[in-house]
Amino acid sequence: MPHISNKGLKMPESPIRKLVPFAEEAKRKGKTIYQLNIGQPDIKTPENALKAVKDNAIDVLSYSHSAGFESYRKKLAEYYRKNDIPVTAEDIIITTGGSEALLFAMGSITDPGDEVIIPEPFYANYNGFATASGVNIVPIQAKIENNFALPPISKFEELISPKTKAILLCNPGNPTGYLYTKEEIEQLAQIALKHDIFILADEVYREFAYDGVKHHSIMSIPGLEQNAIMVDSVSKRYSMCGARIGCLVSKNQEVMAAAMKFAQARLSPPTFAQIASEAALDTPQEYFDEVIKEYTFRRNLLVEGLEKIEGVKVAKPKGAFYCMAELPIDNADHFARWLLESFEIDNETIMVAPAGGFYSTPDTGLNQVRIAYVLKKENLEKALKILEAALKEYNKK
Amino acid sequence: MPHISNKGLKMPESPIRKLVPFAEEAKRKGKTIYQLNIGQPDIKTPENALKAVKDNAIDVLSYSHSAGFESYRKKLAEYYRKNDIPVTAEDIIITTGGSEALLFAMGSITDPGDEVIIPEPFYANYNGFATASGVNIVPIQAKIENNFALPPISKFEELISPKTKAILLCNPGNPTGYLYTKEEIEQLAQIALKHDIFILADEVYREFAYDGVKHHSIMSIPGLEQNAIMVDSVSKRYSMCGARIGCLVSKNQEVMAAAMKFAQARLSPPTFAQIASEAALDTPQEYFDEVIKEYTFRRNLLVEGLEKIEGVKVAKPKGAFYCMAELPIDNADHFARWLLESFEIDNETIMVAPAGGFYSTPDTGLNQVRIAYVLKKENLEKALKILEAALKEYNKK
Repeated sequence: MPHISNKGLKMPESPIRKLVPFAEEAKRKGKTIYQLNIGQPDIKTPENALKAVKDNAIDVLSYSHSAGFESYRKKLAEYYRKNDIPVTAEDIIITTGGSEALLFAMGSITDPGDEVIIPEPFYANYNGFATASGVNIVPIQAKIENNFALPPISKFEELISPKTKAILLCNPGNPTGYLYTKEEIEQLAQIALKHDIFILADEVYREFAYDGVKHHSIMSIPGLEQNAIMVDSVSKRYSMCGARIGCLVSKNQEVMAAAMKFAQARLSPPTFAQIASEAALDTPQEYFDEVIKEYTFRRNLLVEGLEKIEGVKVAKPKGAFYCMAELPIDNADHFARWLLESFEIDNETIMVAPAGGFYSTPDTGLNQVRIAYVLKKENLEKALKILEAALKEYNKK
Repeated sequence: MPHISNKGLKMPESPIRKLVPFAEEAKRKGKTIYQLNIGQPDIKTPENALKAVKDNAIDVLSYSHSAGFESYRKKLAEYYRKNDIPVTAEDIIITTGGSEALLFAMGSITDPGDEVIIPEPFYANYNGFATASGVNIVPIQAKIENNFALPPISKFEELISPKTKAILLCNPGNPTGYLYTKEEIEQLAQIALKHDIFILADEVYREFAYDGVKHHSIMSIPGLEQNAIMVDSVSKRYSMCGARIGCLVSKNQEVMAAAMKFAQARLSPPTFAQIASEAALDTPQEYFDEVIKEYTFRRNLLVEGLEKIEGVKVAKPKGAFYCMAELPIDNADHFARWLLESFEIDNETIMVAPAGGFYSTPDTGLNQVRIAYVLKKENLEKALKILEAALKEYNKK
């Protein structure tokens, strides 16, 4: 029997997916599970986006342009310009989710053995894209004590080697909820310019900035145009995770020309989803105001609830819809599994994401979990109660 | 300014795309272009597939399972079993187009520097996927004189090295239209078993087999289960190129487990397109009968028309909807560009795909073109007239 590749062996399994069999087993036994483990919002997709798909007049569902509909790219460029991101349709390639944009970016700027520096904890699938691209992730640790702020610039400079091609950051951060300040973004820009490397910014949570704090895009820094690459997605912004539409944005024409060759090889992004995404750009501001209000409420409820639980330390998120919490336990992997297998209140339990998988440094964050506040008030309240009771019970053993 | 990767530099540009600027310029000048250069059928997408999307009841467009809807995989497995491909839903991962299935397969079975043997001429984007995966393509030449039949087994064995991980074939073939016989598939199976390598079969044109000849899948060979990997797609079967739904199929659980990790990293295939694809499985047989009748008619019209043109040699296709023709010219790249820039009859011209890009061996197939018979009768007839007159004019110079 022929065997799979080393790459196939090394591909990491998502730390969240590992729990899925235990969740399925618990569901089979009739348990209700409050899912705080994934970023699947319960927010309704904007009407106009769904309607555009229903109203489509397609009779031959043909390939679109490899860079995506021109009409969509033009309208998307307008959206960016309104958000202080001065780009045109030519600076945008529509991709199949933010995931594909990351793959195109990594393929365009790295060769096997190259390095990308990423502040950890980070979105676990960066590991998968790095492995698929043969890239080595060099982690730089952000601390829960500092709310996961950018590590000191000197630390970055210690890690930069001739193999370093980029610094990758997620802003606002998944899993940290950290929103980088203008000063932090400018500091990163200085490192990139000094060392002639790229800043690859995953800004899919851009709209989710709370407390009136402004999001600062890597694309807004004058002078950084040739070093800045942005990854974006409609998944969270419009609660359209299943569309699978994202984009790669850069003013660096060499990067865009290379990415375009990756885009052409896979022919085109999905057509129905582009129709929905183009229409979604007309979503009224009230939709977002409502959503931000709801998430702010949920965040406050969650953070305040967590702070009240004995032994729990929490980093207050300023963006996205995740929160990192340190629990009074040794091993969150074991605790998360135990929650599904052995704990319940009135036949209900919770599912959280153990944070170890968000760190690249081994044996780090083992007592931390990521909690997504994607559930409505009543369910978040129940989930908090379950967590509090579960911690007591778990620590009795 | 930071520079792109060697991979980014090496990514091949599609040989067809190179002509696009000249086609756009010709269109700007008001020329009508009969597009024989790409596999975009003019056939209508089945009503039921389009209707299912219009009738969707989604209010939160959420992620689907990373392997695709379970309901779709089950129904798809039934379709395969009817086609002598004995698989279950567990042997299938739904992908974003056949393109992504090829990428997952390459990532799962090859490491950078590994080799894949491919009979040439082959689908040009295999070059892109190989470059993206760091894989070296080892071409084995099929000849127009033999209608592009499988090269002798001894030739394959000469090329197999310790780095060889798979033989990749497209059946029916793009660009050749060649449909491998049962004996040829069995011969390939013998090589794979003897040398412990995979057979990766791109069978997206399965339904397009003419003259009553049966398609033989690599998945139907008893004893080859652990070596066989199939790539499939709804793009051509249901004229749904813009859906971007394909799948990876194998009984080899190690391969499927590795591919699943690639699938999880990118979260899920597009939801609307899965709805369309699942519904498309109910397309009545009459739809295909009609389509096969139409393509058979077009193929006969095209092949007979080409055979009548002085100096043109043509391989009669038995499947897919492409035809390779040798023209009485030196350089098809130049001729194809000249057709767009400098030739017209009544302000009309044709666009063909120069075949050089379908060969991996340099300077091969330079006098060949691929012609897709995706146009209706009247347009194919006009296209043939234009080609005949163009060859005369071109050779006068």
